[in-house]
Formats: sequence, structure tokens, C-alpha cells
Amino acid sequence: MANAQANIGVIGMAVMGSNLARNLASREGNTVAIYNRSPEKTRAVVAEFPEAGFVASESIEEFAASLSKPRTAIIMVKAGAGTDAVINQLTEVFEPGDIIVDGGNALFTDTIRREKAVRETGINFVGAGISGGEEGALKGPSIMPGGSAEAWETLGPILKSIAAVAEGEPCVTHVGTDGAGHFVKMIHNGIEYADMQLIAEAYDLIRRGTGKSPAEIADIFTEWNKGELESYLIEITAEVLRQVDATTGQPLVDVIVDQAGAKGTGAWTVQTALDLGIPVSGIAEAVFARSLSSKPDQRQAAAHLPGPSTQWTVDDADAFVEDVRQALYASKIIAYSQGFDEIVAGAEQYNWDIKKGDIAKIWRGGCIIRAQFLNRITEAYDQDPGLVALVTAPYFTDAVSRTQDAWRRVVVAAAQAGIPSPAFASSLSYYDGLRADRLPAALIQGQRDFFGAHTYRRVDAEGTFHTLWSGDRSEIEAADTH
Amino acid sequence: MANAQANIGVIGMAVMGSNLARNLASREGNTVAIYNRSPEKTRAVVAEFPEAGFVASESIEEFAASLSKPRTAIIMVKAGAGTDAVINQLTEVFEPGDIIVDGGNALFTDTIRREKAVRETGINFVGAGISGGEEGALKGPSIMPGGSAEAWETLGPILKSIAAVAEGEPCVTHVGTDGAGHFVKMIHNGIEYADMQLIAEAYDLIRRGTGKSPAEIADIFTEWNKGELESYLIEITAEVLRQVDATTGQPLVDVIVDQAGAKGTGAWTVQTALDLGIPVSGIAEAVFARSLSSKPDQRQAAAHLPGPSTQWTVDDADAFVEDVRQALYASKIIAYSQGFDEIVAGAEQYNWDIKKGDIAKIWRGGCIIRAQFLNRITEAYDQDPGLVALVTAPYFTDAVSRTQDAWRRVVVAAAQAGIPSPAFASSLSYYDGLRADRLPAALIQGQRDFFGAHTYRRVDAEGTFHTLWSGDRSEIEAADTH
Repeated sequence: MANAQANIGVIGMAVMGSNLARNLASREGNTVAIYNRSPEKTRAVVAEFPEAGFVASESIEEFAASLSKPRTAIIMVKAGAGTDAVINQLTEVFEPGDIIVDGGNALFTDTIRREKAVRETGINFVGAGISGGEEGALKGPSIMPGGSAEAWETLGPILKSIAAVAEGEPCVTHVGTDGAGHFVKMIHNGIEYADMQLIAEAYDLIRRGTGKSPAEIADIFTEWNKGELESYLIEITAEVLRQVDATTGQPLVDVIVDQAGAKGTGAWTVQTALDLGIPVSGIAEAVFARSLSSKPDQRQAAAHLPGPSTQWTVDDADAFVEDVRQALYASKIIAYSQGFDEIVAGAEQYNWDIKKGDIAKIWRGGCIIRAQFLNRITEAYDQDPGLVALVTAPYFTDAVSRTQDAWRRVVVAAAQAGIPSPAFASSLSYYDGLRADRLPAALIQGQRDFFGAHTYRRVDAEGTFHTLWSGDRSEIEAADTH
Repeated sequence: MANAQANIGVIGMAVMGSNLARNLASREGNTVAIYNRSPEKTRAVVAEFPEAGFVASESIEEFAASLSKPRTAIIMVKAGAGTDAVINQLTEVFEPGDIIVDGGNALFTDTIRREKAVRETGINFVGAGISGGEEGALKGPSIMPGGSAEAWETLGPILKSIAAVAEGEPCVTHVGTDGAGHFVKMIHNGIEYADMQLIAEAYDLIRRGTGKSPAEIADIFTEWNKGELESYLIEITAEVLRQVDATTGQPLVDVIVDQAGAKGTGAWTVQTALDLGIPVSGIAEAVFARSLSSKPDQRQAAAHLPGPSTQWTVDDADAFVEDVRQALYASKIIAYSQGFDEIVAGAEQYNWDIKKGDIAKIWRGGCIIRAQFLNRITEAYDQDPGLVALVTAPYFTDAVSRTQDAWRRVVVAAAQAGIPSPAFASSLSYYDGLRADRLPAALIQGQRDFFGAHTYRRVDAEGTFHTLWSGDRSEIEAADTH
């Protein structure tokens, strides 16, 4: 055992943890302490990656002793009770001024709770969202740390050294205090759900509409990746669609069971949005599409339900593919607009000073939703930090203006063809709702006043009003107590 | 002060509480004790309704003393901390075997917590959902009590005496233990959100599509109310649309601010569905449509966003109205199917023995979603108690089969016209997703395996698999640890 020779430590040697530790060890100036609950795992990692020069410990006390001050440790264990257990262990052996980083996918409200508890010991606690999967952890993720400004002073340079680099800038910034980092990571994942669902719908529409093979559609995605849709998810979609299954010779995508799994962060994004009163319908439809797919009993029982009675055909395959591309871009703008709305609402609710443009910047590299398009978001918030909705920024207004006719044609085609397109359809309805001069929400207010005396406001007068529906139907001014 | 002469008590003399107390007092055999935190309110209620013969108390001790054993008290206060305060007061003065009923709109997990705590004192705690608004409380609501079978023995006859009656049967049943009643009431409200949004979209489409006036559309709803759509919400929609504002002479619906309020139970329904993994997309779109409507700053900023570049017109107004009617019916079936899926999942998660057919029965009268259609749901579950999805029951399969072409035409029209129809479009996509032979969820599984090694299953082999995407792209069998 070596004394206080490591400047950073990692706890948890599953793939994400060991990859992050290797990433840290590969950067100049870093000596990395590692610890895992079962020491066999630690020994295996040390043996497998001798070049990393890990300082291995087999107890938490040894781990703490191997770190120079302020001690800084990144926890990379499965989010949940295990995180609390490790935090408790660390607070026993760490001292005021030391820094505990939770790099797992914690729910931001857990991070707020933990930060508050740990802060009372004088130790810093930083919840840091890390995106990029296993490869990102190894080669450079996008990192979204919360916590105190004091912790960021020590942690910032270390995280900058391992983060992905986009256009010369490291993909990490101090997002805000306590749970801000995990909150923004949650939104990242919610947008990721929407992005993936939109891509899946685009693929399905092209395949069913034109009869093209997965390999042919892979070429389309490769082509799309050269334009405004350029992004990691478009790129890997082409790779997945091009993959041929060695056993059957079939496209791999046809061999995979069509039931999508989920880890819960998409659901959290929607649940939090509901608390905040933010309509994230595109993200919700994406989460629901996955849960619908994973109901084999229901799907089997419903397999006999009829589709459209008239045959649907695509006349011009190239034009249809281009329509789908435009619909994908427009819907994607809506998904990001909704996600950023939730960031704005969360920042207001939890008193975080989140710079929206900086968030878009650190998502340009390392993470799953990295995309060229994010520069446009940064520009939009740079031009107008108080932008009330992303889609109303000039660039995005132009984009939806020129794509909306194609978008409508695709939603129409899907409905006529009987091809499920919940995220495309929902985004378009959201767009039309946002721009509507009048919404039938007025009727809903009338209904609510009728059955629950919930009152309504008038377009031509201040105050709240109630019609005496079960009386003489005259209107009275009412205190809004319902 | 009178001794132990009342067989039932009500706490909380706001409109819902005083109306429920009056309802109780009007039934033979009941003597009703009442109590309110501020005694002025109690005195006012006694003075206003002398015919009720209320036994009024000005302290909680006096209230308890005025009740015969087992003491039974219904709490009708605003859900939240106030409920806990009253429960604490009652557990001080009640005795084992007595019954505390929470008739507010409590979150069912709060009810589970409260039931557990109160049970330890030997007192029964019953969370009872009560639907029907102020008028329902007075004349006969639909009541959804949870709690123990023991409590139901005493409470059942009292609740049956005040519940609405539908086809000779009182609209109340013992839903299940602890939080089951409030859970089912939550689902009721979620379905109510969807139902109201669908009606609002139907109205908006007809108005914008045909140029008919609200009064003319009121007549359409009155006509619809004679057929398979017959329901309270359709009935009152006609009433609201027919209402003329006395001040302006305009239809009232045009004078009401088009921003819909919400009390939170719709959001709870969606949040709980996300925990349970149940796609309730129609309910979610309804909740989001209300929150979107209530963002005036965003709506103003987005008012310049363009609509369809080609003009949309309805050729045959009557045919279009009939299409909308059919789309409304089909979408409504989906909303109920999703709501009952959530009941099934909740019952499984929380070990409630909920009889789905009985739930549909007690919703036939008193409550906001009361509808003729609910008899079909009861029949469906009577015929097949293990029905995996409501929409797959013969009656509903027939209904969507004959309406789906119209449904598609309406979703197409809305997309072409630029009229937001999130709930119509979402329900149709859900329908097409449920009956799809293959879903692009397989591509999503491929993407997840690519970036996160989340593994996938194969259609032709047991086990989970992973492609070495950053290696030689061969496939390996994997433990599903991600």
C-alpha cells in the first residue's frame, strides 16, 4: 500500500468504473486509486491493465489513505441503495474539504438529499451525470457535474482532462449546485429516448413504405449523417442496420426481438416534467412506445385487430424518404425544445443557475445525443438567454417552416398506412398546439366549471368567474378557491 | 352536545363536505355529526340546512362523543398535510374498531402509508375515492372505498345509502385493501382527462373544419348523446357550448380564456403508469395538452410559426362530423383500455383483488365519466376476467374495426389542416402499435446494444446476446447484467 500518492480515486470496477479509471490514468499528471467491494475484481483490473499504474486498495480505509488531499473519489456503482452504502463508508474515512463524486445515474432528488446530508460533515458531494456509455467512459464522456463551486475548483481540471473534446472545448461544465448535474443528465437521457424513437419510426416508415432492405436504409442514414441530422445516433443506426447476422444471414435487426428495454431515466424525465407542468409529449411517447413493445401477451391478443381497409402505397420512394428526413428533423427540434423547457423549469424550481447554451455545448461530444445540431441550440441561447421556447428561435423557426409540409405528409402517410408513429404524430400536434391562436382548452374550462365549479377566466375582464349551471345559468364573480 | 346519537360523522364543511353530510342526513336511519376546524362554518351549515338535523360539534372530542360505536367519520378536507392533521386528531379520540374514512383526493401511496399507521392503533382507516363533484356529493356520487373488509361491513350499508344508483345498483363497491380505492379513483380521473381532451379535439375539428357555431355543435353533441357515446361529459359539453355569455352576447366558450387548469390527479395517473410500465399515452397527451395551453408566453412567441401551406377544406360536413364521432368513440375505447391496463398492473403490484367489471359498474352513475359504454366493459370482464387488453374483447374489437377508417381520416385531416389533435393521433398510433406484427423496437435494442452493451434477445434462440460492435462484430452470448 502506498501513502497518499493518488490524486483521484474510483470506486466500483464494473465496466463503466474501470473504463473511467483507465481514462483518468491515461491523462498526464493523474495517479488513480481504485477500490471495489469484492477485491477479486480489483485484482483482475490491475492485472488486465498494468499500464494504468492503478493504486489498488482492498479496504475503504486503505483507499482513503492512498489519496492525496483534498481526497477526491468518483463512485461508479449501480444507482440506488448501493450508492448510499458507499457514501456512508466514505464519509467515515474522508475529512472536511474532501470530495465525493457520484458518477452513476442517480435520480436528481436523491442527489439533492445526499448533497445536503454529506455537506453537513464538511465533505463536498458532487452528483455528476456521465454520458457516453462504456466507450465514452474510456475515451472521453460528456460530464455534467453539480455540487458546490468549491468542489468544482478541484474537480474541474480533472474532469476536463478526461472529458470528450468538441471543437477544442472539453465537454464538461459546472452545471449548477446540488442535483443540477443529475437533473440535466436525466433530461439528456429523456431526449435520447425521443431521438431513438424518432429514428426508429423513420426507419419503419421507409422500410414499410418503400420495401427497401435494412442495408439500403443504412445507406440512407449514412447519407443523412452528412447533413443537418449529423449525429452519433444516426451514425450508429446505419451501423446497426448494415449488420448481418452470422447465424442466419438475415439483417441483424430482423433477428432481434422487437421489445425495447429501459433503465428508467426516460420515465423519470416525464414524471419530473409532470411535476413541473412541462409538456414533454415527444419524450413520453418514446417511453410509452418502449413499454408497449414489451407487452407480448397484449400484442399477441391484438394481432388480429384490423388495419386500414384501403391499400397505401408510396408513389415516389425518393420523395418519401426525403419527407421522412424532414419530418425527423422537425420532430427532433420539438424533442429538444421540450427538453430545454424542462431544464428551464427545473432550474427555476430548484434555484439552479443553468446556462442552457453551455449545456448544448457539452452535449456536442462524448454523449449519446451528440450532434452537429447542438451548435444551433448554443447559438440560439447565446442570442437570447431568455428564449421562451427553443422552437421560436430564428434558426429553428426557419427549420420547421421549411419542413412542416413534409412532416404533415409523413404523419398523414403513417395514419393512412397503419404504421405506428407516436413520436412523429405527437410532435406535430404539439407544434400545432403551440402556434394555435385559440385552443379548445376553453371548452375544458367550461366543462370543469360545470361539473366542479372550478371557475374560469374571461378574455375581456380580470378575475375568475363561475356560471350557475344548476341554477339560472347567470355568471358570478368567484374567488378561485377550487 | 348530544351523546353518541349520530351513526356517521363528516369533518370538513367546505362544499364537498357539507353536500356529502346533507346527502347522508337525507337517507333514512342516518343521524349525521359534523365538525369543521373553524366553528363559524359549522354554525353556518347548521343554520342553512336545518332539515338535515346535524349534530354539530365545536371540538374533535365533542365530535367523537357524538358518534355511536363503532364511530365512523368521513374526512372531507383538501388532500395533503391537512388530512394528516385531522387523522392524528381522530386517532387521539377514537378507539379500536372505529373507522376513519378519507374521502378526499389523496394520492394512493399516501393512503397506503396512512392505513398502515392507523391500523397499528386498532382503528380502521379507509381511503375512499368520491367522484361526482359537488352535485354528486349531494345527490349521489360514485364511491371507491379501499381499506379492510371489516371496515366495509360497517361502512358498506352507509355508503350504499348515499351512492348514485345505476340500473338499480348503488355505485359503490369494496375496491380492495388499503390504497386500492384511491388508486382506482386516480385512474378514473386520468380517464376523465383523456375523455375531456378527446371531446375538446372533436369540437375543435368540427368547428374549424365546418365553420359551425358552438350552438350548432351543441346540437351535434346532444344528438351524439343518444347513441353509443351517451355519457355525462357529452351531455354537459352540449350545455357548455349552448351557453351564451350575457355580457357580450357571444358563445361563452369564446369568452373563456383557453388555458386549462388541472388539480394533479391526471399527472399522478401518468406518473404511476410510468412506474408500472404501462403506456397510457392518451391520458398523458391530455395532461400535456392542458399544460401546453397554460403557457401564454410560449404560445405568444410561437404564434408566428407557420401552418400548412395548402388550404384544407371539408367537402361534406355531415360526413366529416360522423367521422369525428367515430374517431371519438375509437379513441375513447383506447383511453379506457389504457386506464384498465393500469388498474390491472396496480392490482398486481400492490396485491389488490380488484374486480374490473365491478369498477366499470360503479362508474355507471354519479361520477364524471359515467357512460352507457361502461356496461360493455363490465360485460367484457365478465366474459373473460383475464382479458389482457380491453380493446381485444369482441365488442371493442368490433367497435374499432368499424370506426378505424373514419379515425384515420380524422387524424389525417387534423395533420393536413394544422389542427392539434394530440389525443386522437396518439390513440391511433397506440392502436397501430399494439396490433403491429413487428415494431422498430428491434432497432432500438440494436442501438442500445451498440452504445451501451445492453444486450438483446433473438427471435430464434434463448438467452441474451451482444454484438462486439467495436471489435470484430461477432456475436457473443451475454449475461443480462446491464
